[in-house]
Amino acid sequence: MTKQERAMNTRHALIRSAAQAFDQHGYTLAKLAGISAGAGVSTGALHFHFDTKAAMAAAVETEAARILHAVARRVQRRSPCALQALVDTSHAFAQQLCWDVVVRAGFHLNSRTSHASETDMLREWLECVRRYLTRAAREGSILADASVEDMTATIIGATIGFEGLARRDREWLSRATLASLWRALLPRLATPEALARLEPAGMECALSAAGALPEGPVGGLTGGLTGGH
Amino acid sequence: MTKQERAMNTRHALIRSAAQAFDQHGYTLAKLAGISAGAGVSTGALHFHFDTKAAMAAAVETEAARILHAVARRVQRRSPCALQALVDTSHAFAQQLCWDVVVRAGFHLNSRTSHASETDMLREWLECVRRYLTRAAREGSILADASVEDMTATIIGATIGFEGLARRDREWLSRATLASLWRALLPRLATPEALARLEPAGMECALSAAGALPEGPVGGLTGGLTGGH
Repeated sequence: MTKQERAMNTRHALIRSAAQAFDQHGYTLAKLAGISAGAGVSTGALHFHFDTKAAMAAAVETEAARILHAVARRVQRRSPCALQALVDTSHAFAQQLCWDVVVRAGFHLNSRTSHASETDMLREWLECVRRYLTRAAREGSILADASVEDMTATIIGATIGFEGLARRDREWLSRATLASLWRALLPRLATPEALARLEPAGMECALSAAGALPEGPVGGLTGGLTGGH
Repeated sequence: MTKQERAMNTRHALIRSAAQAFDQHGYTLAKLAGISAGAGVSTGALHFHFDTKAAMAAAVETEAARILHAVARRVQRRSPCALQALVDTSHAFAQQLCWDVVVRAGFHLNSRTSHASETDMLREWLECVRRYLTRAAREGSILADASVEDMTATIIGATIGFEGLARRDREWLSRATLASLWRALLPRLATPEALARLEPAGMECALSAAGALPEGPVGGLTGGLTGGH
């Protein structure tokens, strides 16, 4: 292993350990000493990579955004239509939030603070939802009297609510809960023809049940810095 | 003013000041010295009423629950049917969360922690939603293929999401955003006959527009410990 590879590994271990500390204790109470210990390095090594706790938080947020972007691209390539892509993206994000502490801590820090961060994951998720609904309307799979703006607000509220509620009970981010949301919304949103083809529990679930995909969290497929707790 | 009245006033001022500190800085960073100063009393007076910061948080939560119970009862007495009562309760709670720092801080503390608190406002809100939907089904105003459980999960997710999002932008708890949610959900939930009578923006809004009610936050009508920031 080269010196550069070792430095990258240490940096990744520190980001992971910081995410665990933020997830467990919150940003305010997380201690740098605990973070370096969790990564198996000295506080000197930590300070070589990160000047401050804020810099660590920014790195966790950036890494979370990178993973979610990769997940979103992967889902988009596979999905047969815009509405299914939206449903599948919500499931894939929920799974990632459950299994990947870096995504969970990074998304939470980023979406709950009004700091001038480079990435704004909440804004990106809102634009992703709106874009898919607008594309679905162009595809002719949206009911004439459904409002893209009303549905965007409802979907953002519900998914962000589930993310917050899952901090108390992980079940709120389960495939079953997300499927409940889509069973409640899709009949008001999709034309009967589109609705007949949609899978509220996600295509990945349908494919996986048919043996086309390996089981397990999405994180295992995206590469990079993944893993749960 | 009797000695007992003065003590009650001090206690109320301390609860208010604690709520402001929790709302602004979070529970962890809120300082007892700042709370007593905010209430215009000595730290000795604070300790006469509350042993610990945890005891103050519990008092804020209890007071928030008391106010929300009063709001819920008031809405229930007025609403013509279960679905409108549910819509109106969500609007009244949202207004209260916007205007009343005690409700905002108390609900947030109580719903985001898994402590063994006496009150569990999240659980109560979930049961309130489920009860209204079940009552609406008995009243015959729910579509035969609508699922009470799917809708309960969706409504809880969305409303709790709005509450969290409003910490970044108060607009998420506005009457307009809540009305978006109900415009998106009610056509999937209510029979056409029921739907024609429902007001997604809330009956209070309709009555107020007709001049039947004074304008302003609900807080002003419930008595007790209210006020915004």
